[in-house]
Amino acid sequence: MSAADPLALAQALIAAPSVTPATGAVFDVLEEMLAARGFVVDRFLAGDAPDGPVENLLAWRGGEGAHFAFAGHLDVVPPGQGWTSAPFAPEIRGDLLYGRGAVDMKGAIAAFVAALDGLDDLPGTISLIITGDEEGPAVHGTVALIERMARHGLKPDMCLVGEPTSVDRLGDTIKIGRRGSVNIWIEVPGTQGHVAYPHLADNPVPKLVRALAAIDALTLDSGTDWFQPSNIEITDLEVGNPATNVIPRRAAARISIRFNDLHRGADLAALIARTVHAHAPNAVVTPRISGEAFLTPPGPLSALVAEAIAAETGIAAELSTSGGTSDARFLAAVCPVVEFGLPNATMHKLDEAVAVADLDRLARIYRGIVRRALAHF
Amino acid sequence: MSAADPLALAQALIAAPSVTPATGAVFDVLEEMLAARGFVVDRFLAGDAPDGPVENLLAWRGGEGAHFAFAGHLDVVPPGQGWTSAPFAPEIRGDLLYGRGAVDMKGAIAAFVAALDGLDDLPGTISLIITGDEEGPAVHGTVALIERMARHGLKPDMCLVGEPTSVDRLGDTIKIGRRGSVNIWIEVPGTQGHVAYPHLADNPVPKLVRALAAIDALTLDSGTDWFQPSNIEITDLEVGNPATNVIPRRAAARISIRFNDLHRGADLAALIARTVHAHAPNAVVTPRISGEAFLTPPGPLSALVAEAIAAETGIAAELSTSGGTSDARFLAAVCPVVEFGLPNATMHKLDEAVAVADLDRLARIYRGIVRRALAHF
Ligand SMILES: [Zn+2]
Ligand SMILES: [Zn+2]
Repeated sequence: MSAADPLALAQALIAAPSVTPATGAVFDVLEEMLAARGFVVDRFLAGDAPDGPVENLLAWRGGEGAHFAFAGHLDVVPPGQGWTSAPFAPEIRGDLLYGRGAVDMKGAIAAFVAALDGLDDLPGTISLIITGDEEGPAVHGTVALIERMARHGLKPDMCLVGEPTSVDRLGDTIKIGRRGSVNIWIEVPGTQGHVAYPHLADNPVPKLVRALAAIDALTLDSGTDWFQPSNIEITDLEVGNPATNVIPRRAAARISIRFNDLHRGADLAALIARTVHAHAPNAVVTPRISGEAFLTPPGPLSALVAEAIAAETGIAAELSTSGGTSDARFLAAVCPVVEFGLPNATMHKLDEAVAVADLDRLARIYRGIVRRALAHF
Repeated sequence: MSAADPLALAQALIAAPSVTPATGAVFDVLEEMLAARGFVVDRFLAGDAPDGPVENLLAWRGGEGAHFAFAGHLDVVPPGQGWTSAPFAPEIRGDLLYGRGAVDMKGAIAAFVAALDGLDDLPGTISLIITGDEEGPAVHGTVALIERMARHGLKPDMCLVGEPTSVDRLGDTIKIGRRGSVNIWIEVPGTQGHVAYPHLADNPVPKLVRALAAIDALTLDSGTDWFQPSNIEITDLEVGNPATNVIPRRAAARISIRFNDLHRGADLAALIARTVHAHAPNAVVTPRISGEAFLTPPGPLSALVAEAIAAETGIAAELSTSGGTSDARFLAAVCPVVEFGLPNATMHKLDEAVAVADLDRLARIYRGIVRRALAHF
């Protein structure tokens, strides 16, 4: 099979609108591409309302030997108003292909499908782990795909996630980990009253302020070899009292913690609760953990990804753990996982666009990665 | 002239609706009462929108000798829903007269008018300083009345304000001062950003929290012989950021200070501004001074008021400076001023009511006060 043009594949995927959660047509397009390349394709729905059902696609081909998995998502964030051309009508202007998902991450999926052509000679198994809900709640997507693989007896030895990790130039950044994320709501009850008679009231605001000052003074860590220091931000305050002469009956705040692999979300939530309760014993502290931190320490997988990048671009990629969360946090529980993909300057923005030349280069890099991976392991 | 019944006078005043700002009919009723008792009556409007015009009434009778002034207001706070009988249809049920203004303070004005009968033999001048805007902005009320008096060449030697100062029983409390009040708005600007990239943002919340913790730790004073300690309350917090992953661009708070006569509002505003700017140099601090503290130190005026109370009730009145602000703060610049009036349990509430017997007792106490005052000075 001669190599497909990743541009044509990307155009076909972008042309199927798939604002999160993605369903139906865009999966049909991908299924057809993979079936044509000898993959077994298993599409299924997972989960119930409100976070489901979510459409997912698992595909694999090959047999004995190492198992290389590529993971990604077909859903995209809403395009918003103000695009130069229609967001789901892929359009080439100059050197760029415009469309929602061009870099995050239909372009990368197209590049990986194109990379498959010319790998038929390899031993081992290649799989694709593709969800329709990465940009949304992400509860019934990659998590359900991992369970589904186990039920099929499939266990990857390594996984590449195609998120747009490149910053200034294709190839400059590989992600080998991500920080975890926890949001915590703090509510301090009090007793309303008149400011002229404070002994008849119980002002919750000073308690909240002292608790927040104590939280602000916490140092969680000073970073690690691979992670920047964990960071706490107070993102909201709310009392909602319009009357200047009234002591309010409640005060609330919200904090957001991005943490490295020295911590677990539940431990941080407990630390915050202890800190709050030292100043406001009756406060209600409600954590929501969006994801735990993970790290795939530099090793064979990151080395062969860097080699493939250098062979194609001459760039020595930087290993990074910065930025937000991704579904790689779920896959890290299964096998070593790294993330590498297109430059991310336009992701989630108006006029999202990918350089056509980058699609070709990324297909060749992905092919180099799979070839090295299945030869190496 | 035989003494009028204060109950009938109170009923007549309550029957003229006068939600703040009071105008017209309720002043007609009072003017007629005072003209019948030989008073010169000067009614006038003061001020422009938005805090005016306000209707005021100045009345005086007498000549050579000391000048005793009685001050008060004909406006009332809105009645609200849920009264047992109509708030502006005075109704006697059991021992009580119900109606908006029964204690705050049409009942006291009625008692003072009734007290006038039987004081024709005294030397000196008696005046009434009555505004239609004490419960509202109070910008063009008593302040304008003081200017008007000066223009007429009238200068009181002492002033009694008829606010409802009694707490449990008529006569238990005389106010000889009031705390001052200042509200201060604090706004800290910042730079919005994503919690995953805090170095690209400038979170205003920790700065505000540190400033408020420092304010909360301030001790303004430990009280005086006549005042409780000055007190700071944080009454509002506001960020208004619904997004858990966003560092907000501004954070705001409001504080309320009730302060004794060791302080002036402007000095406290400056102290708060300095404290805030130590933690948030770019914060905007906006004070609004509602009133300065004042004290009429215990002396001849408070002594003769206490004597008149004791003679009628046998109660040794307590001298107090507690509670909110009143127009006495303006009069204190002119002459010694004390406040004494009805029990305040139902003021500003549904089913505001005064004991009919208290109206009679208050008229006799007021008469005793004026008699002692004009004889003494
Ligand atoms: Zn993505
Ligand atoms: Zn009043």
